[in-house]
Amino acid sequence: MASDAEIEAMRQAIGLAARGLATVLPNPVVGCVLLGPDGTVVGEGWHEHAGGPHAEVMALRAAGERARGTTAVVTLEPCNHTGRTGPCSEALIAAGVTRVVVAVPDPSDEACGGAVRLREAGVDVETGVLTQEAEQGLEPGEGNEVWLTAVRRQRPFVTWKFAATLDGRVAAQDGTSQWITSVEARGDVHRLRAQVDTMLVGVGTVLADDPLLTVRDADGKPLARQPLRVVADTRNRTPQNAKIRGDDAPTWIATGEEVGVVTGSKGSSALDLPSLMHQLYVRDRRHVLLEGGPRLAGAMVEAGLVDRVIAYLAPALLGAGPNALIDAGITTIADVWRLDLVDVRQVGGDVRVLARPRARH
Amino acid sequence: MASDAEIEAMRQAIGLAARGLATVLPNPVVGCVLLGPDGTVVGEGWHEHAGGPHAEVMALRAAGERARGTTAVVTLEPCNHTGRTGPCSEALIAAGVTRVVVAVPDPSDEACGGAVRLREAGVDVETGVLTQEAEQGLEPGEGNEVWLTAVRRQRPFVTWKFAATLDGRVAAQDGTSQWITSVEARGDVHRLRAQVDTMLVGVGTVLADDPLLTVRDADGKPLARQPLRVVADTRNRTPQNAKIRGDDAPTWIATGEEVGVVTGSKGSSALDLPSLMHQLYVRDRRHVLLEGGPRLAGAMVEAGLVDRVIAYLAPALLGAGPNALIDAGITTIADVWRLDLVDVRQVGGDVRVLARPRARH
Repeated sequence: MASDAEIEAMRQAIGLAARGLATVLPNPVVGCVLLGPDGTVVGEGWHEHAGGPHAEVMALRAAGERARGTTAVVTLEPCNHTGRTGPCSEALIAAGVTRVVVAVPDPSDEACGGAVRLREAGVDVETGVLTQEAEQGLEPGEGNEVWLTAVRRQRPFVTWKFAATLDGRVAAQDGTSQWITSVEARGDVHRLRAQVDTMLVGVGTVLADDPLLTVRDADGKPLARQPLRVVADTRNRTPQNAKIRGDDAPTWIATGEEVGVVTGSKGSSALDLPSLMHQLYVRDRRHVLLEGGPRLAGAMVEAGLVDRVIAYLAPALLGAGPNALIDAGITTIADVWRLDLVDVRQVGGDVRVLARPRARH
Repeated sequence: MASDAEIEAMRQAIGLAARGLATVLPNPVVGCVLLGPDGTVVGEGWHEHAGGPHAEVMALRAAGERARGTTAVVTLEPCNHTGRTGPCSEALIAAGVTRVVVAVPDPSDEACGGAVRLREAGVDVETGVLTQEAEQGLEPGEGNEVWLTAVRRQRPFVTWKFAATLDGRVAAQDGTSQWITSVEARGDVHRLRAQVDTMLVGVGTVLADDPLLTVRDADGKPLARQPLRVVADTRNRTPQNAKIRGDDAPTWIATGEEVGVVTGSKGSSALDLPSLMHQLYVRDRRHVLLEGGPRLAGAMVEAGLVDRVIAYLAPALLGAGPNALIDAGITTIADVWRLDLVDVRQVGGDVRVLARPRARH
């Protein structure tokens, strides 16, 4: 049984882990708190970016000699392999840590086994403490869900974001859409973009809107680290002068020739989306932000490739224009795709709904 | 200047007024608190139903002899005319009330003038205390807004309610829609229906869904008092055996012949909706709940006849099927109809959005 102090330290570690959200991919967010024998915190750390020190190592460094005899409270099972850094299990053993409390076991083939190694070395290991909080975050969407889901499914986690009116329109009848939502909601989208490593749009959106699709800070300046921009473009129709081809950020025009095609629900050939997702995973991509348009969103929903939905709904009405989602393969109410509401809040003058799809029946 | 005790009493009076919400139409909700010279409450009352005693009279009755020398704190200017009951201004004077504090002046031609009459009789009158709270309610939608708007515009207040998926669909592609929202959201709709005196649907909804359109309590039993059911039916297409024609509640099939027709935005003849609203007002109807379908909603929005929007949004996706709103006469984003968010909350597993349209530009 974890003590109250250990549970409280785990909550603190989950909060520390979240500090890495915008920088850590393709690695997991991890937080670590070292508790001395009297229950006081003697060191803490979090994983900031791939190639940088792991959370356990940061905490051990902070504690120095005081690490001996401590309990390490860590949000993810300590790794047991040598990548760009050495295995954390060995570092904890070498520092004289006597007990390790873990929220979530490591699901990856290469890094798991840390708990077994620690126990072999005589360290007391307890797992399953605040597992759900570590996965889902103390604030909605701020846990390790993205990385864990990606590793378990061997494809990137997919967040589908859309901005629509209360009647579900993403643009007016004539295609104009700037702006449906408030400046605050659009700022929220940029914070969201900063947390992903990939942005995905359909070629229809490129042809209609010619988006730049970069991440900017609150002052409108592009961030140093830009996600990969991917265009789902079965027949290679992205114009040579499209903004998305510019050197503001890396770009991949994913064509049917490269990724493969399948026969869509309406008989036409469509991009092989599971193959696209697999290729992104192989390229170390762990979090795809699906930004549009409605047809690509429908295909992704139909393929079961959406893990989170974030809807920005403006209190506004259009009565005409494209819908947020089309052609998802659902024809009758019995087949409606249910989601669970995770969070509802106002952002500026708009409503933000965060929902998690239920397993398909 | 109203004293702190008077402002607190006004808040109490606004809460009392709201007790009449489900029963008072076509009259306003009104609450009254009588404060003795030492600031203690010596009587309170609210208006429960048309033909019954007004709030002031109820409060005076409760206070009895103690009414002499008190301050009457009342949410609406006391009436000055003899209807089914005598004028409240005279009742207050006769009871020896020495000061009257009012939130909202009476906008109706027949009942206004109460403040003038009271001042003539030497009563100190102060108006404009918590005016906005009295209009909008302490809880969203629980003030006197409905009656005040109806009297000011000489037509019923219109609440448009719809239930849709997160992508704005009110039914699946094959027309099935039972049920998009949760049992809790549907219960909330019945509480809403209990507060209106009229429900309006288009004949398309009657032909598609054959709704009964009655108000039921939490146990599913029909209420004793049922709103008027109105079908907007330009060409008299409501079937003779439609459920809505049954004797469960009063019904009016509003045809073009009776109400008048206008040429719609697409050149076809459409029901003259302002005329329909005027005729409902003449028939003492003050609150219309617009329940469907999308085309009638579009025509009502285009005609500027929607005063409140209540959207029940299920965390669910369809990707096909009818939209909540069509043909509202808006073609480009510059003409989008903006609303102000009044309230957002979870009802069951769904999101309820309450919004107030801004004035059209």
